[in-house]
Amino acid sequence: MEKQELLYEGKAKKIYRTNEENVLWIEYKNEATAFNGQKKAKIEGKAVLNNKISSLLFSQLHKAGIKTHFIQQLSDQEQLVQKVTIIPIEVVIRNIAAGSISQRLGFKEGLKFAQPLVEFYYKNDELGDPLITDDHVLLLELATTAELEEIKRQALAVNEVLIPYFQEKNIKLVDFKLEFGRTAAGEIILADEISPDTCRFWDLATNKKLDKDVFRRDLGKLTDAYNEILTRIGG
Amino acid sequence: MEKQELLYEGKAKKIYRTNEENVLWIEYKNEATAFNGQKKAKIEGKAVLNNKISSLLFSQLHKAGIKTHFIQQLSDQEQLVQKVTIIPIEVVIRNIAAGSISQRLGFKEGLKFAQPLVEFYYKNDELGDPLITDDHVLLLELATTAELEEIKRQALAVNEVLIPYFQEKNIKLVDFKLEFGRTAAGEIILADEISPDTCRFWDLATNKKLDKDVFRRDLGKLTDAYNEILTRIGG
Ligand SMILES: Nc1ncnc2c1ncn2[C@@H]1O[C@H](COP(=O)(O)OP(=O)(O)OP(=O)(O)O)[C@@H](O)[C@H]1O
Ligand SMILES: Nc1ncnc2c1ncn2[C@@H]1O[C@H](COP(=O)(O)OP(=O)(O)OP(=O)(O)O)[C@@H](O)[C@H]1O
Ligand SMILES: [Mg+2]
Ligand SMILES: [Mg+2]
Repeated sequence: MEKQELLYEGKAKKIYRTNEENVLWIEYKNEATAFNGQKKAKIEGKAVLNNKISSLLFSQLHKAGIKTHFIQQLSDQEQLVQKVTIIPIEVVIRNIAAGSISQRLGFKEGLKFAQPLVEFYYKNDELGDPLITDDHVLLLELATTAELEEIKRQALAVNEVLIPYFQEKNIKLVDFKLEFGRTAAGEIILADEISPDTCRFWDLATNKKLDKDVFRRDLGKLTDAYNEILTRIGG
Repeated sequence: MEKQELLYEGKAKKIYRTNEENVLWIEYKNEATAFNGQKKAKIEGKAVLNNKISSLLFSQLHKAGIKTHFIQQLSDQEQLVQKVTIIPIEVVIRNIAAGSISQRLGFKEGLKFAQPLVEFYYKNDELGDPLITDDHVLLLELATTAELEEIKRQALAVNEVLIPYFQEKNIKLVDFKLEFGRTAAGEIILADEISPDTCRFWDLATNKKLDKDVFRRDLGKLTDAYNEILTRIGG
């Protein structure tokens, strides 16, 4: 496989074309951003950690029968994925109240929900990724009703695989963000990344934060937290 | 009917007990507030206008077979209504993009939606009345799934009555906010008010604003706009 020109540079990853039409080359970056890009830093070692953690988690989902864009890890900072057209919806799954849902709706941080909650946010930096309802999704023509149902089904399936997986490693999966995309064949599959940048992980015993909240709230060294996650999942 | 003690004073109305257990006495106020109470004014004549307009509109809905809390207008500023337990959801129905949906999701002000859009906001001043999804409603235990369906059904039925009613009066019904409540018998009925405080009304030909946006955006004399609405609906 051959790395070709840069197609897109996001806040956390660079996406390159390859000699294969349907394959992309992803390079993780050492950049950390929070609060819609208002807080920024370069953090040596983050790219390697997220690339490894995301590769491990996507492999785990593959084993559990969930289709994802992940093909293989190439190097410390690089991986190959299937090219999709990203559906501009950030799909958030919450098992425990934390972050914006506590601020917006007054749920006490740490409250365990009786059922996992699925929320959609419009992936639009200019608008600040606002919360949207199913009707907004249809109005904005981001996805059809059938696609929304499929996305919710897959998001909850991912959650059902990851909760016990992390539980065994003494980690609470508090919440996480997923992105889905359409393949050339029109199938919807899981894309982007699953890492401490996109999940909230709390230590089972102490509730110590082992995710990007360490950066958001200045709670210590980010790579220590991410390393702890990687070690516990056996990387 | 006898007016008894003040039960509750809101931003726009005072609610009194009566000698009838299931009947409340409402007195409209001359207060105008916007931006979650940050902008305030006393506007002579507003109470009389809103009381008359809301009474007329509820009578119109009654004629069309929609159950509401409205019993009768008592005086310029007062009316009798059936007591309900208000469901703390602000139900917003949008026919044309304006206000918060334009700001939040980038819909151009004036865009006509292919279908009326129904949104729920958590009626909670402390949290600033945030947008909520159906799943949030269930999680917050504000209503059951069956109640939500019933609320949506009734909200769209109100819209179907009011759109042509206003159209005949050369007024575009851009959007409006409804509140529903449970009667002692557990039935869900329309409550609160329908007035230029809670609707966006635009002149059909000129798009001139004839509602609370006149106050929000300092577009002229509020009572002139409200008077125009009252005159056109024959009050
Ligand atoms: N399989 C894939 N095919 C195409 N694009 C993908 C795939 N997986 C992820 N992407 C996209 O790659 C982009 C770069 O990722 P990154 O996380 O750096 O972006 P971001 O800064 O979070 O978001 P964005 O730049 O899109 O606002 C994202 O837009 C993401 O949706
Ligand atoms: N039929 C009814 N039975 C009981 N309460 C009602 C009824 N109709 C309206 N209400 C309530 O009366 C209160 C006073 O109305 P008003 O519009 O002044 O309140 P508000 O300032 O908009 O809102 P709030 O004070 O509740 O935050 C509101 O809480 C409204 O929900
Ligand atoms: Mg990203
Ligand atoms: Mg009110």
